[in-house]
Amino acid sequence: MASTGASDQSLRERASRVIPGGMYGHMRAAGLPAGYPQFFTRGEGCTIWDADGRKYLDFMCSWGPIILGHHHAAVDEAARRQLEKGDCLNGPTDKLVELAERLVGLMPHADWAMFSKNGTDATTTCVTLARGATGKRKILLASGAYHGAVPWCSPYPFGVTAEDRAHAIYFKYNDVASLEAAAAQAGNDLAGILVSAFRHDYGLDQELPDPAFAARARALATEKDAALILDDVRAGFRLSLHGSWNDLGVQPDLSAWSKAIANGYALAAVTGNDRFRKAALQLYATGSFWCGAASMAAALATIDVLQAEDGPARMRAVGQRFRDGVAAQAAKYGVGVRQSGPPQMPTILFEGDTDHATGSRFAFEALKRGVYLHPKHNMFLSSAHREADIDFALSVTDEAFAVIAGLR
Amino acid sequence: MASTGASDQSLRERASRVIPGGMYGHMRAAGLPAGYPQFFTRGEGCTIWDADGRKYLDFMCSWGPIILGHHHAAVDEAARRQLEKGDCLNGPTDKLVELAERLVGLMPHADWAMFSKNGTDATTTCVTLARGATGKRKILLASGAYHGAVPWCSPYPFGVTAEDRAHAIYFKYNDVASLEAAAAQAGNDLAGILVSAFRHDYGLDQELPDPAFAARARALATEKDAALILDDVRAGFRLSLHGSWNDLGVQPDLSAWSKAIANGYALAAVTGNDRFRKAALQLYATGSFWCGAASMAAALATIDVLQAEDGPARMRAVGQRFRDGVAAQAAKYGVGVRQSGPPQMPTILFEGDTDHATGSRFAFEALKRGVYLHPKHNMFLSSAHREADIDFALSVTDEAFAVIAGLR
Repeated sequence: MASTGASDQSLRERASRVIPGGMYGHMRAAGLPAGYPQFFTRGEGCTIWDADGRKYLDFMCSWGPIILGHHHAAVDEAARRQLEKGDCLNGPTDKLVELAERLVGLMPHADWAMFSKNGTDATTTCVTLARGATGKRKILLASGAYHGAVPWCSPYPFGVTAEDRAHAIYFKYNDVASLEAAAAQAGNDLAGILVSAFRHDYGLDQELPDPAFAARARALATEKDAALILDDVRAGFRLSLHGSWNDLGVQPDLSAWSKAIANGYALAAVTGNDRFRKAALQLYATGSFWCGAASMAAALATIDVLQAEDGPARMRAVGQRFRDGVAAQAAKYGVGVRQSGPPQMPTILFEGDTDHATGSRFAFEALKRGVYLHPKHNMFLSSAHREADIDFALSVTDEAFAVIAGLR
Repeated sequence: MASTGASDQSLRERASRVIPGGMYGHMRAAGLPAGYPQFFTRGEGCTIWDADGRKYLDFMCSWGPIILGHHHAAVDEAARRQLEKGDCLNGPTDKLVELAERLVGLMPHADWAMFSKNGTDATTTCVTLARGATGKRKILLASGAYHGAVPWCSPYPFGVTAEDRAHAIYFKYNDVASLEAAAAQAGNDLAGILVSAFRHDYGLDQELPDPAFAARARALATEKDAALILDDVRAGFRLSLHGSWNDLGVQPDLSAWSKAIANGYALAAVTGNDRFRKAALQLYATGSFWCGAASMAAALATIDVLQAEDGPARMRAVGQRFRDGVAAQAAKYGVGVRQSGPPQMPTILFEGDTDHATGSRFAFEALKRGVYLHPKHNMFLSSAHREADIDFALSVTDEAFAVIAGLR
């Protein structure tokens, strides 16, 4: 397969000397098909440019944060104006209060909010808060679910001790019996049930939450005086502006937010109800940049735009247009494809493609033609994606399907 | 004592409804004397404004991050230019490589660098890396030292389980015998020794590292095939641009950085040597905003300025001018004062003031006159502090000392 451009290669070579493996974490291109660039220079709307100036219609949205498109004028202007006043000061600005009021107003479950920088900050705060509030220790979480990259939850347990997970009990997402078994195992020591907005495990078909599962999680947490913690870091604001389980009629006690809430500016949040307010006051959670006002101004502007344009509905509509087009092409070429998850956060996997070789080739063929897909991870639509963008993407996937069909 | 202004009071009232306790973490004004504002609006150089437009000459520098003064033109311009290109993309930009090269060039101990957002991210990465690399578990750390606000290290163990600290062994900073005893207790299971650049525990006199202690920590880590981890989050770039223990002739294996490295833009880093490179590649450490390019551009510009103006020497000089002036005033008024730590990160405590009542009154009298000091925590100078600023601060502390002396 093709290699990346000369600038990307040169940067990789330099990076290999001063960064372990040349790059770390989820943005390491080594997990992508050969030919995918490691380095980028620019984004505008739903278009990105790699280090060699190659241009792509983007379906990853920076792995989630970009929800209105890059350089949304209202968001950037709000952040710029706040930066000109003050961002990192000896305490918060009025933006902290405004944003907390805004989230409390949006989320039916929420009576209060706290802010941090990483999704992992938010999930860690929720888990610690659940333990502190209840005086109990066990946390139930779905096996294979991603809740962050620190020892209590990292998907790769390098450097993790047994004690880091001594109080974790695993269940199967959407499986009420396994959830109940996990709760029974926790006995009188259940502090919280931590659950993703939907099942979005790497490399697997996504699963929306079964309403019966969500309801049972809620009931168990209530019965056992534990916290129901919704990890809305990845899905937050794309499915709903009122929490991803609101449409199911299930309200968590605590929710973790990050990624899309400030359209790419670094921000995370925890929202909670009054049952956990006193504990939240007792918890010591802090960070040097957690009061950064520019990211909060960006979040307020992001919410304004998402509300004004009904962002979730728009993203769902363009996502559905893409999904329908891909399904028609798969049928036309006789290629078995599984599309899963909400249309605004789609995963596309190929039948019988356990090693993701077909998916990787498909994604690479799309990349070559200017569309950036991910062969294994869920993708993300933004409200900057328009019908014309989807139609261009489909013209490209049609050619990619033709290549795949020709290989068989 | 006086209350804060009307805007501050109004924001506090609103915050009390939507934020637990009205504010959380180290920026909670409840830990400061009455009269200290909770909310701020603006910063310029070494001057800050609270929500009521009251202006202060600032000695906290946002608890460390502001090292060149607020709105340093070169830093803000570098960040702005990068934001206009791209900040949060599908992968890093060239700024990641440039900054890693820069840190490796500056730090004699470093062969590589990785980036994140919080100081706690960096210390957690170091500890996890030490465990992964060595296959061992015990971490030695000084009792009372601050290394972050998550369960393995939080100073307030609310929500913390015994297992979160099962492999922590505590020693006394600067006490070789206690360090050796801790190492002996770890036996063959020693993964790392985590040590702050100097002792800067809240509410206590600061202590510079005893060279014999630093040397012994280094030797023990080497002997026991463990990592010497320097927590340079708070002190980094203020004492030296080559690591805070470089002048002692002691090089760590891993260093944690954050706070001042990008003059207020949210960024953290880990630097390490080749002994830990392979492990760093195996570690899964990541976050949604960890490749944010604007903060990296800001860090590069910050380093440029610090090098060009010899920032550490400048901050030391103005800090010493302040310290000398305070000492002279304390003598003049016959008030017993203890000044500790490096002059650019001063702590001022009063003799016999175990409840910090005198220090709080002193700080409040300075605050009323337009100088923002901290009565218990170490303070921070920036390179924006000029001799004239120090002289103004001393004119204020002279009056504050007169009040204190009059009370006795």
